[in-house]
Amino acid sequence: MTTRALRPELGCCYYPEHWPRARWAEDARAMAAAGLSWVRIGEFAWARLEPRPGELHFDWLDEAIATLGAAGLRVVLGTPTATPPRWMIDRHPDMLALDAAGRPRRFGSRRHYCFSHEGYRAEAVRITRLLAERYGANPHVAAWQTDNEYGCHDTTLSYSPAASRAFRRWCEARYGTIDALNEAWGNVFWSMDYASFDEIELPNLTVTEPNPAHSLAFRRFSSDQVVRFNRAQVEAIREHSAAPILHNYMGRITDFDHFALGADLDIATWDSYPLGFLEDRVEADAAHRMRFARQGDPDFQAFHHDLYRAVGRGRMWVMEQQPGPVNWAPFNPAPLPGMVRLWTWEAIAHGAEVVSYFRWRQLPFAQEQMHAGLLRPDGAEAPGLAEAREVARELAETGAIETARAPVALIFDYDADWAWTIQPHGAGNSYFGLVFTVYRALRALGLSIDILPASARDFSAYRLIAAPGLMHVPDDLGHALARADALVLAGPRTGAKTAEGAIPLPLPPALPGLDVTVARVDSPRPSPGVALVGGGTMGRYIEELETGPEARVLERLANGAPALVAQGNWRYLAGWPDAAAARRLVRGICAEAGLETLELPDGLRCRLAGGRRFWFNYDASPVAFAGRTLPPAGVLIEDAS
Amino acid sequence: MTTRALRPELGCCYYPEHWPRARWAEDARAMAAAGLSWVRIGEFAWARLEPRPGELHFDWLDEAIATLGAAGLRVVLGTPTATPPRWMIDRHPDMLALDAAGRPRRFGSRRHYCFSHEGYRAEAVRITRLLAERYGANPHVAAWQTDNEYGCHDTTLSYSPAASRAFRRWCEARYGTIDALNEAWGNVFWSMDYASFDEIELPNLTVTEPNPAHSLAFRRFSSDQVVRFNRAQVEAIREHSAAPILHNYMGRITDFDHFALGADLDIATWDSYPLGFLEDRVEADAAHRMRFARQGDPDFQAFHHDLYRAVGRGRMWVMEQQPGPVNWAPFNPAPLPGMVRLWTWEAIAHGAEVVSYFRWRQLPFAQEQMHAGLLRPDGAEAPGLAEAREVARELAETGAIETARAPVALIFDYDADWAWTIQPHGAGNSYFGLVFTVYRALRALGLSIDILPASARDFSAYRLIAAPGLMHVPDDLGHALARADALVLAGPRTGAKTAEGAIPLPLPPALPGLDVTVARVDSPRPSPGVALVGGGTMGRYIEELETGPEARVLERLANGAPALVAQGNWRYLAGWPDAAAARRLVRGICAEAGLETLELPDGLRCRLAGGRRFWFNYDASPVAFAGRTLPPAGVLIEDAS
Amino acid sequence: MTTRALRPELGCCYYPEHWPRARWAEDARAMAAAGLSWVRIGEFAWARLEPRPGELHFDWLDEAIATLGAAGLRVVLGTPTATPPRWMIDRHPDMLALDAAGRPRRFGSRRHYCFSHEGYRAEAVRITRLLAERYGANPHVAAWQTDNEYGCHDTTLSYSPAASRAFRRWCEARYGTIDALNEAWGNVFWSMDYASFDEIELPNLTVTEPNPAHSLAFRRFSSDQVVRFNRAQVEAIREHSAAPILHNYMGRITDFDHFALGADLDIATWDSYPLGFLEDRVEADAAHRMRFARQGDPDFQAFHHDLYRAVGRGRMWVMEQQPGPVNWAPFNPAPLPGMVRLWTWEAIAHGAEVVSYFRWRQLPFAQEQMHAGLLRPDGAEAPGLAEAREVARELAETGAIETARAPVALIFDYDADWAWTIQPHGAGNSYFGLVFTVYRALRALGLSIDILPASARDFSAYRLIAAPGLMHVPDDLGHALARADALVLAGPRTGAKTAEGAIPLPLPPALPGLDVTVARVDSPRPSPGVALVGGGTMGRYIEELETGPEARVLERLANGAPALVAQGNWRYLAGWPDAAAARRLVRGICAEAGLETLELPDGLRCRLAGGRRFWFNYDASPVAFAGRTLPPAGVLIEDAS
Repeated sequence: MTTRALRPELGCCYYPEHWPRARWAEDARAMAAAGLSWVRIGEFAWARLEPRPGELHFDWLDEAIATLGAAGLRVVLGTPTATPPRWMIDRHPDMLALDAAGRPRRFGSRRHYCFSHEGYRAEAVRITRLLAERYGANPHVAAWQTDNEYGCHDTTLSYSPAASRAFRRWCEARYGTIDALNEAWGNVFWSMDYASFDEIELPNLTVTEPNPAHSLAFRRFSSDQVVRFNRAQVEAIREHSAAPILHNYMGRITDFDHFALGADLDIATWDSYPLGFLEDRVEADAAHRMRFARQGDPDFQAFHHDLYRAVGRGRMWVMEQQPGPVNWAPFNPAPLPGMVRLWTWEAIAHGAEVVSYFRWRQLPFAQEQMHAGLLRPDGAEAPGLAEAREVARELAETGAIETARAPVALIFDYDADWAWTIQPHGAGNSYFGLVFTVYRALRALGLSIDILPASARDFSAYRLIAAPGLMHVPDDLGHALARADALVLAGPRTGAKTAEGAIPLPLPPALPGLDVTVARVDSPRPSPGVALVGGGTMGRYIEELETGPEARVLERLANGAPALVAQGNWRYLAGWPDAAAARRLVRGICAEAGLETLELPDGLRCRLAGGRRFWFNYDASPVAFAGRTLPPAGVLIEDAS
Repeated sequence: MTTRALRPELGCCYYPEHWPRARWAEDARAMAAAGLSWVRIGEFAWARLEPRPGELHFDWLDEAIATLGAAGLRVVLGTPTATPPRWMIDRHPDMLALDAAGRPRRFGSRRHYCFSHEGYRAEAVRITRLLAERYGANPHVAAWQTDNEYGCHDTTLSYSPAASRAFRRWCEARYGTIDALNEAWGNVFWSMDYASFDEIELPNLTVTEPNPAHSLAFRRFSSDQVVRFNRAQVEAIREHSAAPILHNYMGRITDFDHFALGADLDIATWDSYPLGFLEDRVEADAAHRMRFARQGDPDFQAFHHDLYRAVGRGRMWVMEQQPGPVNWAPFNPAPLPGMVRLWTWEAIAHGAEVVSYFRWRQLPFAQEQMHAGLLRPDGAEAPGLAEAREVARELAETGAIETARAPVALIFDYDADWAWTIQPHGAGNSYFGLVFTVYRALRALGLSIDILPASARDFSAYRLIAAPGLMHVPDDLGHALARADALVLAGPRTGAKTAEGAIPLPLPPALPGLDVTVARVDSPRPSPGVALVGGGTMGRYIEELETGPEARVLERLANGAPALVAQGNWRYLAGWPDAAAARRLVRGICAEAGLETLELPDGLRCRLAGGRRFWFNYDASPVAFAGRTLPPAGVLIEDAS
Repeated sequence: MTTRALRPELGCCYYPEHWPRARWAEDARAMAAAGLSWVRIGEFAWARLEPRPGELHFDWLDEAIATLGAAGLRVVLGTPTATPPRWMIDRHPDMLALDAAGRPRRFGSRRHYCFSHEGYRAEAVRITRLLAERYGANPHVAAWQTDNEYGCHDTTLSYSPAASRAFRRWCEARYGTIDALNEAWGNVFWSMDYASFDEIELPNLTVTEPNPAHSLAFRRFSSDQVVRFNRAQVEAIREHSAAPILHNYMGRITDFDHFALGADLDIATWDSYPLGFLEDRVEADAAHRMRFARQGDPDFQAFHHDLYRAVGRGRMWVMEQQPGPVNWAPFNPAPLPGMVRLWTWEAIAHGAEVVSYFRWRQLPFAQEQMHAGLLRPDGAEAPGLAEAREVARELAETGAIETARAPVALIFDYDADWAWTIQPHGAGNSYFGLVFTVYRALRALGLSIDILPASARDFSAYRLIAAPGLMHVPDDLGHALARADALVLAGPRTGAKTAEGAIPLPLPPALPGLDVTVARVDSPRPSPGVALVGGGTMGRYIEELETGPEARVLERLANGAPALVAQGNWRYLAGWPDAAAARRLVRGICAEAGLETLELPDGLRCRLAGGRRFWFNYDASPVAFAGRTLPPAGVLIEDAS
């Protein structure tokens, strides 16, 4: 990930199969006129491409691509495997995923397939190959998207017979012998020993919680099945096309390893719905939710831009950008005027090469009929389109956007997320929540952040590396961090587990050069928490630390226990801080690291990209800072060189 | 529905099969002595009428009817089809309804049958015919009740194989060809196209929400199945009896179309449990719930009286009136003294021909042992009996009660209720909730209201017609409303959908003579909502309106957007008002319509019937108005001519 | 239960199969050195004793027992039947319990067997007999434990085919004829009559609630199945061993009759997790939960000590004592320093012969890896060990602890608990909650309490007997209470039901010598409740009483209704008092009974044992009383003779 100069572009998602052919050319012209240059199509069209098994109808897609291309648009062609047609169930009655209660997840919406079903995987490769053969050399098809939003609607985990069979083979491949598995999982506990791999069931419907090692293995297996499913499509496409391949990830869906899947892709894209996400998947109190109801959380999108820039090894798009109210959250308010523009610019400031709006035109029927588009159902312009057009104009003026490494790295690890989910140890605790607390504190201090996978070993660009809650720290990662020039913010729960999800001996965190031992764990209710001497509290998860003579205690709990410990370049946090404490403690570490920080109010955020600083006002009121005032939904780009 | 003079009567529900024969005559005498003249029997007695298949025991019922009749009581005879005996399951093992999770709803309480099961329907007709043959000419059997509380315990929707088969045939009958169905539902979306009707499954257990058109069709089908089941019984009875046929509906059960079922009946009756309903199915905050805990909601009963008067085309009874504490709500307080009398009089003021208490005597065993009767389990009088006796005395003094059309009409449409349930677009939104908000505002202004079905076309009697939330407005209804002499209060969401649940083009509301377009929809959290210029707020569901030059904006949101628009006789409300706003806006429209309104405190309500105004104090404190004071639970009847 | 002088001892739970053999001797020595003299082993080791069907490996257990014994420890040997190995499922595929939704409760944790499965019961007896044969005469095996925590994880009730078959036979044995059952249950209601026992299903998945008599019978049956399962093990052990047999019950698990099961045991033991229980099963507001988060509820442990002392007919142990944070509650805080000692002493003050910590050493893997032990996972001492060691030292100094009857008896009846669960009549009402309200009031007044089963007839030792909520009062119990020298605190709901769960005629409570009738029942929301004249409120469940001329009303509700009535030695409480009212009313009754009371603040508790009074400060702050100050977690033993 080196410095690059991007010329960001805009796009949209379009469904020619939903509209009369007569309309296509007009739509294509209007897209281009609005300043859009990319259009994604096809990802739900299987039933129209192959209405009966083997009966292929590609003519309409030929024409659609030609029409769009003729208007100067570049096409992202999706494989339609998220929505297998109804006839597929008759060919593969056991292809349905089963939920944790053992119920089939039936036809009638989307994503009803089990990733472990061999028959369906073969069908998915077949339709992908047919598309790749036909369009692999098409000059207008400039990129490919595999499937759609893997994992959405809780679809990574399936408890089907196909998954059960595949899990047994996966275990066999991983552990070699059943004795090794029994040993690795600690099955001696509660007489859970297996005599053969064929005795292993999936970890659902147990009387009380299953062995966490069993659950962790199942989650790793389930993630691998998604990666394997995707890889088969990627390989089929690459046989026939040199165009880049991408997938559209979702916000805060962490059930499979996005880095592992991303390794097979050329670009990582994601679907950004700030208002839906605020209602649906940001942990926040009522006041925060009300304050940002029409703007979205000020940090949630930025986090994901940074995450997917890492997943895409520097290449990131927003494939679906919310353009107005959506239909699927508990509440679906309309955005504050200006927010569509703001969201777009924030993506660009974080390195997005393309921001593509979902969808071109609101569809008047079926599940998403209440989901806004750039056009209304009657074809008139919706408010989002004017904002998109404004961004297009501004982009033309702004010129290239440089990207560069940020001074701060934050490690995000899916495996750690699963381990926390399996053993939260306190109601409401989650890995994402802890990492996001640190991310928000860094960002409130005006810092730009790079997210890294746990496989990162080169930290030479950074002054600060944060790895809170990283449950398992491989030896070489620990040593790489210890050797880094940067300060390393670790804890709580960094290094808390072995690779098999057990408590390591010697006790955690066992980080090289850090003479600290977690003697005991405490998970009190998050509120009121335990006071810190310097202000704020810790709650949810607190570690009682024993510290060696070289370790300096930088901060203590009111009861005298160490709360933040320093040794060498390690800064070890003994608990989950509240927002105030997180900001204060992170500020101090940044100062030590020589990082210059700002003090931003809750609604104001910024990002440095190359020589420019981008400012964003997420508040519904004007915000004053540094002698200037940014209006609601305001965006300001200033020279920061 | 013309002006009628009623001589209201009282009754009760009785179960001779629960008590020794020796007690029957004494009970009958006591009923008559208390001033009751009707008694309903038999609706759960199948196991005692036919203890083994084909082995009929009607002798006890003969005697019970004779005994009751001898005391001067008129009998409502129920068909016992809500409680098929245990042996029925052996004859029809697949007759059980399945819930949405696919689980059988088993024997051991009641209503365990699936409306779509042909075998059970034949059995139901068989026992009905046997009863009709035997008692059709019995002079004491003065009315028939079909089944009991259709839809109670969430029993309208069944996901059984029988329902699945029947639904496919229903779809075929409605749409003709599978292509027409695919087109109507918009199955091109997400590759949901079917190749034949036999591919259609019921819309449960899908991965994410099913197509709303699919769900709407299933709800219409399910309602039709109830109507069909009931009609078969009605036809069997009419072959042998000229007595009126009725059914006892429940409060706020809207899963089937009561108007459609009512078209086959002579009288609509309902079961009124004000305290149970307040705890169980009125949306209210804690303060309201505490204030009316022993009195019931001041508007809920009135709403249902008005609704069922419409369902019965003018003829309405309360078949089961709560006489004391019940057993089935989350909390089961005893009524404030006087409330049994108040509830009875309120029913009468709304046109009830009969108010029948449930039940005569509290049963000491089985599921309803904690449900009060007019007698205690030991046969002593419970407090409710004295109040019933008082009403009987008062009725004798009061003479005929006149009924007449109200000046205000409110359209209530079950199909709209289903469409809202399928697409609430905001957590907690419901059609009933919106309509009830308007109803409560009208009633707090002292107005009497007629409820009408969406099939109504003659509005000549009314000065104001309210049709909020009426999702689909058929063309001829729209024109009839536009031509009415009355003002029409529409919106939000009136005309929001086509007959198939899609967004119409041109955009909603598309009402004739109203130049207003819903450009966008906003569903913020209900609290705090968006302020109105004149006071109060709108929340939950707000429509951004574009208005034509002829449309006058009567009220705006604080952000300037139109909140109430007038054109011709249309008054279009752009959102869901809170209680204060609803009252204020409705007051203004009433003034325009020339309707005289009162300003009633929350606990005081009234209704005009013929030349009398009936006043009711739902509060636990005395209420002063117009120079008079009404005690808690007070009823006042005054000459209003 | 006569006065006894105990020499209480300490112990721990140990799993030799989890650790290398080389470690066993060292662990044993360390246990003994810490002052522990008992060690429980074996209760989850089936898979290591019999890894394949019939292939027995007892050598390691021989060695473990010998090693522990050689260190001077006495062994409690557990039967491993709570964790049948994986191969058992292949031999008995239908042995799994089914939950109320009909889903199998699968292998992968523990307690997955159905108590009614004959095949599994035979296997359980087989392994038990093998253990008894081998170790029945072993000098180190000084006690036996059957299974582990019957009923934990909601495992008493199973809806399996095996349970269904057994329930039919149980019904036949109880009722003799199906007509008798129909009559007893009142199946005439809703046509629920059965024609034969083979028609009876289990009371799950019914459309609305099943017949409460049906549910009550199923709960009695389910309890009997646990007792029967346990008895088969007891009999197998007694054939070969004279050592006492015990079982480890859990806190607030009331699904089976502990007294009935205890009748087959020699000692009752229980597993005491004060912090886990506070989060998981004590009803309390947030303030109480926060205040005692690190100490546990001040009365919950005492209640169970008293309960299990009764279940064990005077002999009671704590088999598992929380020694630090646990892993299984919603939140898992670390105990306040000193609480492990306090909990231990409180058990001893209540008559515990042994307090055994769970577990010796924290295991680094599997489900309980986050559950503290006396040693940390790395073998270092955890804080709990020092406190245990301190108690051991103190015990040596303190000498014998006398136990004696308390002056107050409280009846606790499992059958009543089931009847309340089936018919709470108000959301959140429970028998345990009501009884615990009275227990807490008594204890806050400084009183020591004996708990008695409903089978008690000798009350000669007591001045006050409390029997609130005792749904069914057998005739001879009623007479025994009426004849007692003590005052009897009854109500609400004492005598409210017949033996079959119906309302008795004449109406409740029908207690001899008490001329009071429950005319009606009122179950308002618990808050704010109905005010009492003397302060405090009643809520949840209030009975409207009719009182005879001999009955004196001692307290009234603000509306004038009787709230506490006296006649002879009866004191009948007409409702569920809040904490303030409970304390005030109980204080008055105690004064009448000649019981001396104290006024203890919320965190301070005491118990008289023989000539000593034990004081406990559950607060995190010092508490001053009677001129002295007790520090947080303080324990004080004073001469009270």
